[in-house]
Amino acid sequence: MPVERPIQLKIAYDGTDFSGWQRQKDERSVQAELEKALTAMHGHAVTVTGAGRTDSGVHARGQVAGFFTDIASIPAERFTLALNALLPRDLRVLSSAEAPADFHARFDASLRVYRYFITCAQTPDPIALRYSWFWPRRPSISALNAMAAVVQGEHDFSAFASIKDKSVSPWRYVQDSSFWFEGERLVYQISANAFLWRMVRSLVGTMLRVSSDVSPAASGDAGNSADAEDSVDAESARIIRNILDSKDRSLAGPTAPPQGLFLWNVEYGERTHGRPRKVS
Amino acid sequence: MPVERPIQLKIAYDGTDFSGWQRQKDERSVQAELEKALTAMHGHAVTVTGAGRTDSGVHARGQVAGFFTDIASIPAERFTLALNALLPRDLRVLSSAEAPADFHARFDASLRVYRYFITCAQTPDPIALRYSWFWPRRPSISALNAMAAVVQGEHDFSAFASIKDKSVSPWRYVQDSSFWFEGERLVYQISANAFLWRMVRSLVGTMLRVSSDVSPAASGDAGNSADAEDSVDAESARIIRNILDSKDRSLAGPTAPPQGLFLWNVEYGERTHGRPRKVS
Repeated sequence: MPVERPIQLKIAYDGTDFSGWQRQKDERSVQAELEKALTAMHGHAVTVTGAGRTDSGVHARGQVAGFFTDIASIPAERFTLALNALLPRDLRVLSSAEAPADFHARFDASLRVYRYFITCAQTPDPIALRYSWFWPRRPSISALNAMAAVVQGEHDFSAFASIKDKSVSPWRYVQDSSFWFEGERLVYQISANAFLWRMVRSLVGTMLRVSSDVSPAASGDAGNSADAEDSVDAESARIIRNILDSKDRSLAGPTAPPQGLFLWNVEYGERTHGRPRKVS
Repeated sequence: MPVERPIQLKIAYDGTDFSGWQRQKDERSVQAELEKALTAMHGHAVTVTGAGRTDSGVHARGQVAGFFTDIASIPAERFTLALNALLPRDLRVLSSAEAPADFHARFDASLRVYRYFITCAQTPDPIALRYSWFWPRRPSISALNAMAAVVQGEHDFSAFASIKDKSVSPWRYVQDSSFWFEGERLVYQISANAFLWRMVRSLVGTMLRVSSDVSPAASGDAGNSADAEDSVDAESARIIRNILDSKDRSLAGPTAPPQGLFLWNVEYGERTHGRPRKVS
């Protein structure tokens, strides 16, 4: 039997025309497109695993996919060009390399980084709208970051998961959660060992809803404007903390739409949180 | 009868999912989407004219559209918000204003500016590919600009028109034609009083083809490298001049694909070239 080498791909896709990462009958998925190209190359079925099972309409800039190859003649780096020649234009392999012997793209990932883009403009251009959520007002960046800081650390994220999430545990470790502006584009970045289903989009939808609901007047402080801002930040953070502590999905805000979300990067290294991988 | 006011819209669209500007039976066109929204607002049919009849898959960042309204109660500037509420996400009104009494978006335009984007990268990301042409080598910018300069001024552009072009005259005045790099993205900008059908894409496809065909070795100068570069530039320009002078479409190169092309801007002002508009 030929030796099987594990190969790790870094891939990017425009999620617009995919039903998501995961293979589904009669749907166009990223996994199925990759498997189709690899099967054509190998002459037999090849299965691909992915680090993040992105939903329909969600994009990726740094998804990681893994598979085993029995073609000895192709250097690992050559899979990039070979696959890009076979793949559709909205799915690209950015790099390919040989992976550790027992590599698993999903179970071995130690950190997943997502970015969510929001366009805060009166009249956004149509290309921005394909890759971001339109939000007509410019929210307070300090209130957003006060809320974003609440979810850092290890928490039960039940309040921010889809009710259809089937995870064994609702606990996740968030390493980093912050907002910043790039011109009229608002960026939210969150990194965690793993995510519950729709967690990023629930967090974004809830934090933006709260940023609209809590105003200096509503927070009861009409005095000094710096005090008023502090008060808005504290009140916004308190609301997010209450929702998180409640573990009640019905208290969270709407789920932000998929087109603003990008799986930005996946890291493989020492894992400090989450279930260790079973070693067989 | 109510007074009809002429309104001028600046619009942007992602051409991916449109069959082009022009209304066509059973096809999704920009003109038809605009007319549908305006007809819904007015309660009767409204016809829209556009400055540039962009092809299927071609985008716009500064297309201009005009129509007449009999709704006296809406200030011209309010059409932006009113229409954006009715239009699909891939078609946006950027601004609206009252136009001169006899305004015609197409006949009155004095200058049209197009940009064509080319991604020169080993592994471009899929979003770049939706809005540019992929060209795996980085061409010589001086050779490209030597070619681009050839088409400046007034010429018979028959060699760079689609054989299906139905223009009365093949003469057009090119005010500006140049290339530049923005990182790994190559930009070509051309402005003219008007264009023949597929003229920009024929020019881009031909100039890039020539940039690949003419190398320092092929141009017969293996000496000093600055001399070799001058020689490549001169030889490239000579080829474009010969094609232009031939008026023979079969000598030009391939037509560059539509997804790299943007109608960038349209200007209205004194016309120095082209047929003056008939005044009735």
